[in-house]
Amino acid sequence: MMEPVTLSEPQPPLQNNLSTSPKKFHVLVGVTGSVAALKLPLLVSGLLEVPGVEVQVVTTERAKHFYNPQEIPVTLYSDADEWQLWKDRSDPVLHIDLRRWADLMLVAPLDANTLAKIANGICDNLLLSSQSFPIRVEAVAVSLHLMQIHGGCQHIASVTRLDLSTTAQMKTCVIRAWDMTKPLLFCPAMNTAMWEHPITAEQIERLKGFGYTEIPCVVKKLVCGDEGRGAMAEVWTIVEKVKMIFSERELPTQR
Amino acid sequence: MMEPVTLSEPQPPLQNNLSTSPKKFHVLVGVTGSVAALKLPLLVSGLLEVPGVEVQVVTTERAKHFYNPQEIPVTLYSDADEWQLWKDRSDPVLHIDLRRWADLMLVAPLDANTLAKIANGICDNLLLSSQSFPIRVEAVAVSLHLMQIHGGCQHIASVTRLDLSTTAQMKTCVIRAWDMTKPLLFCPAMNTAMWEHPITAEQIERLKGFGYTEIPCVVKKLVCGDEGRGAMAEVWTIVEKVKMIFSERELPTQR
Amino acid sequence: MMEPVTLSEPQPPLQNNLSTSPKKFHVLVGVTGSVAALKLPLLVSGLLEVPGVEVQVVTTERAKHFYNPQEIPVTLYSDADEWQLWKDRSDPVLHIDLRRWADLMLVAPLDANTLAKIANGICDNLLLSSQSFPIRVEAVAVSLHLMQIHGGCQHIASVTRLDLSTTAQMKTCVIRAWDMTKPLLFCPAMNTAMWEHPITAEQIERLKGFGYTEIPCVVKKLVCGDEGRGAMAEVWTIVEKVKMIFSERELPTQR
Ligand SMILES: Cc1cc2nc3c(=O)[nH]c(=O)nc-3n(C[C@H](O)[C@H](O)[C@H](O)COP(=O)(O)O)c2cc1C
Ligand SMILES: Cc1cc2nc3c(=O)[nH]c(=O)nc-3n(C[C@H](O)[C@H](O)[C@H](O)COP(=O)(O)O)c2cc1C
Ligand SMILES: Cc1cc2nc3c(=O)[nH]c(=O)nc-3n(C[C@H](O)[C@H](O)[C@H](O)COP(=O)(O)O)c2cc1C
Repeated sequence: MMEPVTLSEPQPPLQNNLSTSPKKFHVLVGVTGSVAALKLPLLVSGLLEVPGVEVQVVTTERAKHFYNPQEIPVTLYSDADEWQLWKDRSDPVLHIDLRRWADLMLVAPLDANTLAKIANGICDNLLLSSQSFPIRVEAVAVSLHLMQIHGGCQHIASVTRLDLSTTAQMKTCVIRAWDMTKPLLFCPAMNTAMWEHPITAEQIERLKGFGYTEIPCVVKKLVCGDEGRGAMAEVWTIVEKVKMIFSERELPTQR
Repeated sequence: MMEPVTLSEPQPPLQNNLSTSPKKFHVLVGVTGSVAALKLPLLVSGLLEVPGVEVQVVTTERAKHFYNPQEIPVTLYSDADEWQLWKDRSDPVLHIDLRRWADLMLVAPLDANTLAKIANGICDNLLLSSQSFPIRVEAVAVSLHLMQIHGGCQHIASVTRLDLSTTAQMKTCVIRAWDMTKPLLFCPAMNTAMWEHPITAEQIERLKGFGYTEIPCVVKKLVCGDEGRGAMAEVWTIVEKVKMIFSERELPTQR
Repeated sequence: MMEPVTLSEPQPPLQNNLSTSPKKFHVLVGVTGSVAALKLPLLVSGLLEVPGVEVQVVTTERAKHFYNPQEIPVTLYSDADEWQLWKDRSDPVLHIDLRRWADLMLVAPLDANTLAKIANGICDNLLLSSQSFPIRVEAVAVSLHLMQIHGGCQHIASVTRLDLSTTAQMKTCVIRAWDMTKPLLFCPAMNTAMWEHPITAEQIERLKGFGYTEIPCVVKKLVCGDEGRGAMAEVWTIVEKVKMIFSERELPTQR
């Protein structure tokens, strides 16, 4: 499970300098509602085999239909789960700023819907599916807490109640508020008809224009026997690409 | 009601060749949250009068406020209804791939919101309103089933539990994953102020650029006595256009 | 609280002419889910100090996390609250067409998400968060009522049951269906990383291209000590701008 950031530890990025152990590379995996999300357990294992890599996952609600969270041996952020998770804990909520924590963001698979939302700057997606959104927040404490998460501040206050929107917020803000000096990789995955729609190429170009890196999809034999482009790149291709970027950029030293 | 695709019938498109009866033309009507959705019963009747035409309807949640489902004598796909429908059945779920089934898609009325979503490639709209989205899916069987629907495969497996997202999925994927060789017609409908917003013309051009066909809206006397453009084309105009396209393209022979 | 539009009063705009008191300037404030929504009470007080100004507020669900509705001394429209409000009343529902009522729309703060939705013509935002959306509407009466609100007609019928979607509808249609001859001001507010994303400038230009007026954001010291652009303009700046526009345009005389 995730390495808890304690309250007496005001500067999570310093962790690496403070530790005598080798550098940690923090990969934040974003997973969306493509059938290729079935490969999430494989992808996470693959990444964890890279020396020094730590992984956390942010998921859309749709993506959760394709894998079993029990098979993901790292922290998984989502609306409902997170809410459940924290409700049962009497400890202070230990939370971290995912966006700051991450050295690299990897959206795999990236479905057509989230592709469109990113291309258009819409940042409500995890929020859309939250069914038990709390009616009213105990404003002051939580706002402050949320603000810190949102603003990316290091001093995480202890709060005893966590607003669902905190986590709901994260993924979208992770992408919309991404620090452009850090790599963001995306792995499109959709069926061939969706892939061939003219809007797909246009939106992928747009993401590349933002400075994000495409890990192109591949031709695959479909369930029905046809062949077509649109399948997510192989897990090993993705892991290799992450390794390459880490070595190229010598991450996370540039932080 | 819908013609069930039985499990022993692996190639639904062959239906037409196998049957000795005259060709069937399959019209999939998509209906969105414009007040013009009041005319859905009329539109469906109009289409059903065309010899050989079969109709199915996919609806957004908003659209359901404008008509009475009991007045729609064909299969109606939506989040909640479908879910209810299948829950009570002990038979295996017999489901079909709407996108493959359809020879022509007719979005009538197309409201400003769904126009924007199509123009931008966003494909979550039916999903947005699903209130009772199932927490976790019995993954294997259902995923497979969903995958087949989504991927457009012919071999429909029997499953005893249907995920809400299957149906939630359909409409959006029907449009986003539309086979561009088949006609897609759309009938904008909005109030005059919405119609005159510069974004409307731009997005309608975009849809035409995708290869979709506009059935233009008309000038109408509004409830308040004013006159203005933005009303959905008359039902007979729409039905005539569908007939014309079927004869022009000699559908569905080109399948 | 809001001035009720009685059923015997078919032309609300005439109110001003009929009244012997000085002109009223109607400001409709739209508030979205930025942390700057904390300033809503301040903004509303500031506006109410301008002679002749009347204010109503439409809020997204997210925005409600940042202020206390009890501190807003004017009518506040939102999905849930409105629904609650009307449920308890036995009087006929007196409702008005916000879009027609308003002389000026002020979106403050405008967050990145709603910015994107407006730029792309998506008009479902208040609807997204409605949790208790009524399953089926008592169609005739309510549709008529809704149609009138939507169509902007003056003759408001009395109905005893109000559909949630009425109010859900309003904000989005207020913007998407805005009468372009009236001013619409927007005050962006987001964290610096979001602000610096290339899509932000592009979408702000787009809104200006629609004819809307930007009240630019400012540089602020962030919670974490950093400085950065993205903070909402000061409340007094916004109020001054509204005053200026009213005097420039001599509103609402041009109605
Ligand atoms: C079985 C199934 C498989 C799907 N596979 C894909 C896919 O590979 N690519 C894609 O773009 N959408 C796919 N979809 C559609 C998305 O799940 C849908 O657009 C959803 O709204 C995406 O939500 P999200 O982007 O918030 O995760 C699939 C849907 C289902 C039901
Ligand atoms: C009574 C009423 C009538 C409406 N009529 C229209 C219309 O004619 N055109 C339109 O674009 N939107 C109209 N709307 C707004 C849409 O219903 C709203 O944008 C909704 O979010 C659309 O959702 P959908 O696209 O998922 O169906 C109307 C809303 C109401 C309450
Ligand atoms: C504590 C907190 C503060 C936020 N502040 C902002 C902000 O200042 N600007 C912004 O664009 N988004 C901000 N967000 C993100 C939006 O609330 C989020 O994108 C939401 O979906 C917006 O919904 P709405 O546009 O329907 O109000 C914040 C989120 C949280 C949890």
